[in-house]
Amino acid sequence: MAYSRKDFISLLDIDEEEILYILETAETMKYILNQKNKKAPYLQGKSVIILFYEKSVRAKLSYELAAQYLSADIVDITVSKVSDQYETINDMGRTIEQMGGDFIICRHPMSGSAKLLAENVHASVINAGDGINEDPSQSLLDLMTIKNQKGSFKGLKVAIIGDVAHSRVTRSNIWGLLKLGAEVCVAGPPTMISSGIEEFGVKVHYNTKDAIKDADVVMTMRLDTDRTSKSRFISLDEYQSFFKIDEHSLLDAKKDVIVMHPGPANRGIEISSQLLDDKRCLLDDQITNGVAVRMALLYILSNKAGAFL
Amino acid sequence: MAYSRKDFISLLDIDEEEILYILETAETMKYILNQKNKKAPYLQGKSVIILFYEKSVRAKLSYELAAQYLSADIVDITVSKVSDQYETINDMGRTIEQMGGDFIICRHPMSGSAKLLAENVHASVINAGDGINEDPSQSLLDLMTIKNQKGSFKGLKVAIIGDVAHSRVTRSNIWGLLKLGAEVCVAGPPTMISSGIEEFGVKVHYNTKDAIKDADVVMTMRLDTDRTSKSRFISLDEYQSFFKIDEHSLLDAKKDVIVMHPGPANRGIEISSQLLDDKRCLLDDQITNGVAVRMALLYILSNKAGAFL
Amino acid sequence: MAYSRKDFISLLDIDEEEILYILETAETMKYILNQKNKKAPYLQGKSVIILFYEKSVRAKLSYELAAQYLSADIVDITVSKVSDQYETINDMGRTIEQMGGDFIICRHPMSGSAKLLAENVHASVINAGDGINEDPSQSLLDLMTIKNQKGSFKGLKVAIIGDVAHSRVTRSNIWGLLKLGAEVCVAGPPTMISSGIEEFGVKVHYNTKDAIKDADVVMTMRLDTDRTSKSRFISLDEYQSFFKIDEHSLLDAKKDVIVMHPGPANRGIEISSQLLDDKRCLLDDQITNGVAVRMALLYILSNKAGAFL
Repeated sequence: MAYSRKDFISLLDIDEEEILYILETAETMKYILNQKNKKAPYLQGKSVIILFYEKSVRAKLSYELAAQYLSADIVDITVSKVSDQYETINDMGRTIEQMGGDFIICRHPMSGSAKLLAENVHASVINAGDGINEDPSQSLLDLMTIKNQKGSFKGLKVAIIGDVAHSRVTRSNIWGLLKLGAEVCVAGPPTMISSGIEEFGVKVHYNTKDAIKDADVVMTMRLDTDRTSKSRFISLDEYQSFFKIDEHSLLDAKKDVIVMHPGPANRGIEISSQLLDDKRCLLDDQITNGVAVRMALLYILSNKAGAFL
Repeated sequence: MAYSRKDFISLLDIDEEEILYILETAETMKYILNQKNKKAPYLQGKSVIILFYEKSVRAKLSYELAAQYLSADIVDITVSKVSDQYETINDMGRTIEQMGGDFIICRHPMSGSAKLLAENVHASVINAGDGINEDPSQSLLDLMTIKNQKGSFKGLKVAIIGDVAHSRVTRSNIWGLLKLGAEVCVAGPPTMISSGIEEFGVKVHYNTKDAIKDADVVMTMRLDTDRTSKSRFISLDEYQSFFKIDEHSLLDAKKDVIVMHPGPANRGIEISSQLLDDKRCLLDDQITNGVAVRMALLYILSNKAGAFL
Repeated sequence: MAYSRKDFISLLDIDEEEILYILETAETMKYILNQKNKKAPYLQGKSVIILFYEKSVRAKLSYELAAQYLSADIVDITVSKVSDQYETINDMGRTIEQMGGDFIICRHPMSGSAKLLAENVHASVINAGDGINEDPSQSLLDLMTIKNQKGSFKGLKVAIIGDVAHSRVTRSNIWGLLKLGAEVCVAGPPTMISSGIEEFGVKVHYNTKDAIKDADVVMTMRLDTDRTSKSRFISLDEYQSFFKIDEHSLLDAKKDVIVMHPGPANRGIEISSQLLDDKRCLLDDQITNGVAVRMALLYILSNKAGAFL
């Protein structure tokens, strides 16, 4: 088996071969999603604990459905504030493990938290977002969507537009795409581009036009209008006029360009409503692939991959 | 099959025959509720998403148990405020559908929201309350309770007491009862009676005595003391003295009158504590029938009715 | 069968024989926890309702996993404030029962609430904490942990340190331990020791040293730094210097002393971080036994014990 780790934490430290193995397994999982009876027995008698220290509707739904399709049991112990959990993440992990939990899906506002937890429990930890570090399964669904459309990553030009510095899925995407042989460039206001990002092999632009020129893939992301990002742009109007993607923005891209957005979208802010509903925008595929990728991760980590593939 | 729609949204636009078909199916579902092992396999491998934009204990419990009794999987993504959901209801519906969700149980503060959602997804939508418009399954359980007691609806006099203008279950009940041949009258303070309601064939009274005279069924409803209704009555004392139902209020009703309340009740405000516990008050039947009706809806919408009945 | 009650409410009014029967059943349940496939069919088709009027992460997790391991269905209707539930606990119980709920796991800020509820429904009620009265299943897991280590309770000296007056698990532990033949002493600031507690046969100390001398078991408990207990100690520093348990505190205890903490722990406040991770501290066993005990309760109350043991 190409993936023999206990946990799934980061795209920074795994190999191209491991990524491709997960994506391949996810394709198989997608069959289950298309059945009338979406129930495969692979995780029967296994317990999946949703340990979210940040509320989330989409991620919760995606992980819970993935686990249910594989017949796992789920307990959701989301708390809205870290302080409500009353104990360190390691003590919480110890509790879950002693109660028989097999998987911990961890979302936490502190970068590095999932890794810390994984090192301290025998249960399998899946990083569902740690601070502004990574959201690796969210990146895998992007990679799966690109692979389905383009076949391969070698030589693809991927333009990522928006708050690159504070988006954890973008960080995961950068590590993943570079590893798989794509060329990555980013564009956004200077306050939203991490300094030194060029050293990793990423090209930096401060306008959308240069970034999108000849791109095979354009990724944009939700602008966080109510939380951390607020101080990072002068006004919403200005942000929209410079960094909103619409049909016009794609004129200089490759003819078969695809557009991606992690959702939920601010229609008319980072992406025009028309483009979001355009067939070049693969939001629907991304959502479905998200469930398939999470099923694949649960399946692979449960150590039964050999019996299935 | 008498009901071939994809969704269940309203009692205004469905036929008498369709209503009776659902009620008949609900009677069959009630058998399952009385088994020691309350588990029928009809919805195995189907996913039911609870999409509530208003918190609810009873409705959540009723829908989740109904789905569990039919072996469905459930994910609850209730959020307390619409703004916490971060995207339009249609984009949320698209997300649920792309993840493989089969049913969306939707409760939303905006009238018309369930219909809008239903028109935009392939999944089956059940309206669990949209603004002050309708709560049609809550009405079906009332209709089922009346039918069990009275056999038929033709010529029955039903008196509805309370905030008629802002109660969504009352609106559904009015459409359903009139369609089934009952005579409906309402009573409440003028601020709680919709203007023009007589045009639909409803008789309006401003005192309880006239409304209840010769009634076969008396329905009252929870007075909303802490939210929207507050500005609609002068004082709680006054409301109680004019519109509280107790044993004395029933003296002019038919001898075999039945009393109904959707729960949760404010004991001593809209109904006396004694009457709520009186055997003429069918609250317990209503609650049980609520689960049966929701099982019937899930069952019928899952398109397997033919194989079962 | 040694336990024939409908409910599990209190350790004050049950017999030694009944306690030992539950502990014995819990040992059998522990086997299931150690299986790769943690799924036994004993509660298939039964519905467990989590009716918590106080939020809880650990208790929720423990009860839900226990129910899942026995194949029950679960609906969690936790509300954070009693007033959000909109109706009396008895009316809520009536609702749950009429919907087909078989078990109600009740946590409520009012002492006596679980008993009141149990007297008014046919469903089985498990008291998951009522005010400052009891948390009897939490005590059973402590008793199970002691029994596993010491074999018997007769003549054991158990020292309980902390806010004895306001800890419901401590009250349950006192009733249980005395009933099983142990000797119980307590230590804490005078504001945290119930007046008259000596009359039940408990020895009272106002310093840790006297309490722990020759103890077989030392139990400490989470200091409630943010809620009710705040007014009961002068300063955190003072509390720590007098009542924090660490390795040094155990010097006068029996050589084979064991230390217990219900979790979640305030590391460095009521117990030192080192001692919490010391092998004499049985926190991990307590957590696992908690799930086993709750499985046993669900199993016994479901009236199938005869078929199993």
